[in-house]
Amino acid sequence: MGYSKLKNELVSAANGVDYAYRDTGGGEDAVPLVLLQHFRGNLDNWDPALIDALATARRVVTFDNAGVGGSTGTTPDTIEQMARDALAFLAAMGISQADLLGFSIGSFVAQQITLTRPAIIRRLVLASAAPQGAAGMHGWAPEVIGAIGTRQTSPEAYLGVFFTPSAASRQAGREALRRMYARTEDRDKATTWATRDAQYDAVCTWGIPDHARLQGLSAIDMPVFVANGDSDPMILPRYSHLLAGLIPDARVKIYPDSAHGFLFQHHAEFAADVEAFLAEAS
Amino acid sequence: MGYSKLKNELVSAANGVDYAYRDTGGGEDAVPLVLLQHFRGNLDNWDPALIDALATARRVVTFDNAGVGGSTGTTPDTIEQMARDALAFLAAMGISQADLLGFSIGSFVAQQITLTRPAIIRRLVLASAAPQGAAGMHGWAPEVIGAIGTRQTSPEAYLGVFFTPSAASRQAGREALRRMYARTEDRDKATTWATRDAQYDAVCTWGIPDHARLQGLSAIDMPVFVANGDSDPMILPRYSHLLAGLIPDARVKIYPDSAHGFLFQHHAEFAADVEAFLAEAS
Repeated sequence: MGYSKLKNELVSAANGVDYAYRDTGGGEDAVPLVLLQHFRGNLDNWDPALIDALATARRVVTFDNAGVGGSTGTTPDTIEQMARDALAFLAAMGISQADLLGFSIGSFVAQQITLTRPAIIRRLVLASAAPQGAAGMHGWAPEVIGAIGTRQTSPEAYLGVFFTPSAASRQAGREALRRMYARTEDRDKATTWATRDAQYDAVCTWGIPDHARLQGLSAIDMPVFVANGDSDPMILPRYSHLLAGLIPDARVKIYPDSAHGFLFQHHAEFAADVEAFLAEAS
Repeated sequence: MGYSKLKNELVSAANGVDYAYRDTGGGEDAVPLVLLQHFRGNLDNWDPALIDALATARRVVTFDNAGVGGSTGTTPDTIEQMARDALAFLAAMGISQADLLGFSIGSFVAQQITLTRPAIIRRLVLASAAPQGAAGMHGWAPEVIGAIGTRQTSPEAYLGVFFTPSAASRQAGREALRRMYARTEDRDKATTWATRDAQYDAVCTWGIPDHARLQGLSAIDMPVFVANGDSDPMILPRYSHLLAGLIPDARVKIYPDSAHGFLFQHHAEFAADVEAFLAEAS
């Protein structure tokens, strides 16, 4: 069944949070791919075309972290607590080994999970990502937070950050939005303003310049795939290169004419790249 | 006139060193491109096909740094002193503004020059490069120094480091060697064992792990083009990503199926990429 038809499920974790999630796909590989969502995103903000492509060969799990969308609890204001909350979800699901795909703020959480509990993570995919403490990462650029950080958001503002101004990218963006909004029943709960504030506090705190912190990435000893769009205004592609330079076993790919939502725009190519990367381990 | 026919010239600098150099090309752009050579290399170790391609549109200057090949003086054992010696050469040549292309150890010197005297450098090309203090850069890998760091070197050992094992790369390597050895008269003086030792001391000292040092690259405020082969065993391509992540205005390109000598193997493509990069400034 396609992602846009999947029902929302709930699992109760030991931390008292009921996590909303969707669980799809399957295959030979017993290790699921768990996805960590972007700033203000919920289950409906994953492009179904990407999830369905990833799920052709393996189990894919999306979830709302604590306090986000359909999950109960409070959105914390630190990446560290988001990592703890994500680990509680994995435990509640009985997932003792996972590949992680973290997107944007989700990539920060994925890095933190991997550093906190490396034993349960097999491989890591970092999409539109940056390392903690990197110079220039202290909050989104004014035009970005002005576009997607406001109380009222719009498809146009979303397109302006997640896609480039080219006709091809904008068209891809409109198609991605159409796929995300095709689901009309049982949509996930919208994320709240409290989630927005807490997540942005976490983003800014994570981004306090701290060169020494960069060294911590040398401890990530599993293979990592780092990917971004060549024109991402939210997290510049230079941070993907920085990650690839600091993580000992990383590969990096920058996708052409694409921005923060490169993984939706290039969903087939990106899913194939992720599959090839994960298949090496299975 | 092609690079392999150029005569060796000498210029006397204020530091008492007579520098051997070759000066070719020309064009609209008044700013010359000055090249900094690899470990143990002299004027004859530049592939003439690369120099001739670069020189179609601009003035290109190659030289032996102090103590190297046909230059007088002593090869110093620090990158810092090599940078001073290169600056003395530029002054002796009356070059008050230059683009730099540093290759391997030459890329270390180019970075140091740029940090020491940024005012005279317009744009920077770093080929097979790494930043000072990067983890894992403390000397070449045993198989690399065992191949090209010995008293007696061989074309086979050179090919093993500068080219990949693929048939296409090896063939490109043999052709590059043929071009470099086509010149039979007025060849540059061979580099000595003292140069080898001093340069390798400098390489190891430069490579002492020092994470804090990496932050210094944030001071390079000019556009930088970082390039390497995807299979360089001498300076891994991850260090090109690290440079591109740390230098604020850098672009990076990794060339396929190539190693330390990617710029000789892909001489036409690399020269075109360098020309496009430098032409933005002129």
